[in-house]
Amino acid sequence: MVQENRIILSEREIPKAWYNIQADMPNPVKPPLHPGTGQPISPDDFAPLFPMNLIEQEFSVERFIEIPDEVLEKLLLWRPTPLVRAYALEKYLGTPARIYYKDESVSPAGSHKPNTAIAQAYYNKVAGIKRLTTETGAGQWGSALSLACKLFGLECRVYMVRVSYNQKPYRRALMKLWGARCFASPSEETAFGRKILQEDPDCAGSLGIAISEAIEDAVNSKDTRYSLGSVLNHVMLHQTVIGLEAQKQFEAINDSPDMVIGCVGGGSNFSGISYPFLRDKIYGKKVDIIAVEPTACPTLTRAPFGYDFGDTAQLTPLLPMHSLGHDFMPAPIHAGGLRYHGSSPLLSQLVVDKLVEARAYNQLATYRAGVTWAQVQGSVVAPETTHAVAAVIEEALKAKEEGCAKTILFNLSGHGFLDLSGYENYLDGHLSEYSLPEEEIERSLKLISQYPRP
Amino acid sequence: MVQENRIILSEREIPKAWYNIQADMPNPVKPPLHPGTGQPISPDDFAPLFPMNLIEQEFSVERFIEIPDEVLEKLLLWRPTPLVRAYALEKYLGTPARIYYKDESVSPAGSHKPNTAIAQAYYNKVAGIKRLTTETGAGQWGSALSLACKLFGLECRVYMVRVSYNQKPYRRALMKLWGARCFASPSEETAFGRKILQEDPDCAGSLGIAISEAIEDAVNSKDTRYSLGSVLNHVMLHQTVIGLEAQKQFEAINDSPDMVIGCVGGGSNFSGISYPFLRDKIYGKKVDIIAVEPTACPTLTRAPFGYDFGDTAQLTPLLPMHSLGHDFMPAPIHAGGLRYHGSSPLLSQLVVDKLVEARAYNQLATYRAGVTWAQVQGSVVAPETTHAVAAVIEEALKAKEEGCAKTILFNLSGHGFLDLSGYENYLDGHLSEYSLPEEEIERSLKLISQYPRP
Repeated sequence: MVQENRIILSEREIPKAWYNIQADMPNPVKPPLHPGTGQPISPDDFAPLFPMNLIEQEFSVERFIEIPDEVLEKLLLWRPTPLVRAYALEKYLGTPARIYYKDESVSPAGSHKPNTAIAQAYYNKVAGIKRLTTETGAGQWGSALSLACKLFGLECRVYMVRVSYNQKPYRRALMKLWGARCFASPSEETAFGRKILQEDPDCAGSLGIAISEAIEDAVNSKDTRYSLGSVLNHVMLHQTVIGLEAQKQFEAINDSPDMVIGCVGGGSNFSGISYPFLRDKIYGKKVDIIAVEPTACPTLTRAPFGYDFGDTAQLTPLLPMHSLGHDFMPAPIHAGGLRYHGSSPLLSQLVVDKLVEARAYNQLATYRAGVTWAQVQGSVVAPETTHAVAAVIEEALKAKEEGCAKTILFNLSGHGFLDLSGYENYLDGHLSEYSLPEEEIERSLKLISQYPRP
Repeated sequence: MVQENRIILSEREIPKAWYNIQADMPNPVKPPLHPGTGQPISPDDFAPLFPMNLIEQEFSVERFIEIPDEVLEKLLLWRPTPLVRAYALEKYLGTPARIYYKDESVSPAGSHKPNTAIAQAYYNKVAGIKRLTTETGAGQWGSALSLACKLFGLECRVYMVRVSYNQKPYRRALMKLWGARCFASPSEETAFGRKILQEDPDCAGSLGIAISEAIEDAVNSKDTRYSLGSVLNHVMLHQTVIGLEAQKQFEAINDSPDMVIGCVGGGSNFSGISYPFLRDKIYGKKVDIIAVEPTACPTLTRAPFGYDFGDTAQLTPLLPMHSLGHDFMPAPIHAGGLRYHGSSPLLSQLVVDKLVEARAYNQLATYRAGVTWAQVQGSVVAPETTHAVAAVIEEALKAKEEGCAKTILFNLSGHGFLDLSGYENYLDGHLSEYSLPEEEIERSLKLISQYPRP
């Protein structure tokens, strides 16, 4: 009997605890700092934004944190997700490499984002919170949180960057379908939004403005909190269910990846698939962990590591991370989920410690990879995911050159059904490469040197 | 151990033969007639349109027809599809019924359509055909055939109704991504298209015109054939892989459906899931088979059974079926795949013989069901599929009233990610109910009475 395309876990095999890489990092992550005092901030400082049970996870160094039954019940709506062997791509490339992907596109929202949205909605619910606010750019995170809030009976208010609100009506409809209220940001809902609209009624909005509105909305109401879909430690924690499942799936076929690949914006899908394997690497196992980002926003490959704000409006604490500067405006590439000026502090530290290798591709290279995938494997992956596919193809061809039958795993973080205009623009020859000029890097170096050094 | 949400077959359990209901029908389907002579047409008459291996399947009364290995290999890219228990919906409705769905939305194109597209592309390929033409309305079928042609190295030319071509850019992009050429119909590619454009340069197009263009394109070239995504016997045959898998999955949990439900346009997803169960019914097993259609296009519930053309331009043979008349123009409901004036001849005969029960819902009722599904089960189903969901909810509530723990199976024929504007219109209160007035039925009765009686 030949091995099957898909390795499926039974539902009782779903991981019962998340893996917290803070327990095993050779160098612990630096603390967030108060921008005024330059001193580490305490869990209490986060209380206006998040419920205490999530803040505890943010600071925890426990290796495993139990997944509550109520969260498992919702995750089982689509998890465990399949581990799939990409036989067709292997054959097409003529590579001796075995290529596997973890298919996170099968969630109701079409990406890995609900893994943490479900957990965050649950913890807010048990803390007595009635309403969550968040921001969204292209809409992946906003729709995932809308779904999670609906499943737990919470209200959800999403501030969506106005230009995306107008350009992505389907994402907006998805949030509405799941019962959320979605506002074009800047909006009339907040003082900050009204102020900006007064100055510029046609303002297209930005993620920075949307974050400010979501935070203002949350802190001004006792039973409302804010929710973030990436960057923070507890978000990475919730996503490790991806890699933990993948480990069980590889055990079932007596294989193990020599290489784990994921795309990186804030870092959540990448961390989710890679941290359980990274734990083995820390304790001596040979496995390459590769983070892939766009050359238009090369945070891990080219930006300095330092303290910077997580948002444009400087409302967050200073976070220790690779950052292109909190006022950095990335080029309008189609992989909206990768257009973030900073990166997860945990991931940044792991890159500094050379446990994770980062590389960058331009969007012409990644769309070429995405089109190859669609025409050979059939499925349409998200523009973000094409970055991982580009690295997989490069590594599979290298393995062919070297005659090396290595096992490659990548995270298929989402499908591209709501992002087909990017593919069309690529096929019509309307896309630009976008690579960041050296001046931008120098600019971010200068900006970040104003803050304390990690 | 509680039963799991999903029942997954291993890949080696995929059915190795399709089930042909023509072997078991109490009354055989009537033959297609030549419109000029009124005499049954022969297989050879189909030769300009289809390769002989598919024509043989069209006329075959063999009970099982082997699935070629090359077709199985491609189907395994996403098959077997999961059988999933909708626990959350059961709980929400408080019903003792067990609700299962067969998830056909997991195919690369997002619906059941590739099941026959793959088979048709294969049979054309082995017959030496280089190019396939087809028409598409909303784009589900066009994208499925584009994918299949790409996987088998055939050219694909899709004539897409102009109004959809302009309104559904994502579907168009999907076809382009899979290497097909997609033309707004009426087009400059055919004599028929040019003639119409000369008379009316702004013509919005219709499925009838698009079929005429696709057929003209096919018959004028030696190495080109035409491909149809529904209605014909061989299409129903290829779709039975759905029901055959479901039977194996129910065996694995020692259950069996008391009721099988699917939505109906031309009949392909409905036939696919129900015919294997219908075979058991023919031989005495008690199982209700329910076909659900829109009140805007009530072919099986209200239209006369007779001989009529399959297309508006009267290029096809006369087919024995329920028909609202080949020039019927259905109301602009969002379930584009159910806006067909006729129905599969096989299915029509089974309705005449009372083996299949047909019912109709208006689109306000079906969207209400679709929104309930999305908010309870999480996933977004296609507008067509909401018709099946509406019937499932009605039956589950009836079972609750009767205190009857029956098992209900329905076909989740596709996802709704590319149809979210319909949901948004419903949520915004912009949709009309649309039910067909009595005059339309009388009109179709009059039209069909002009042709031979079955």
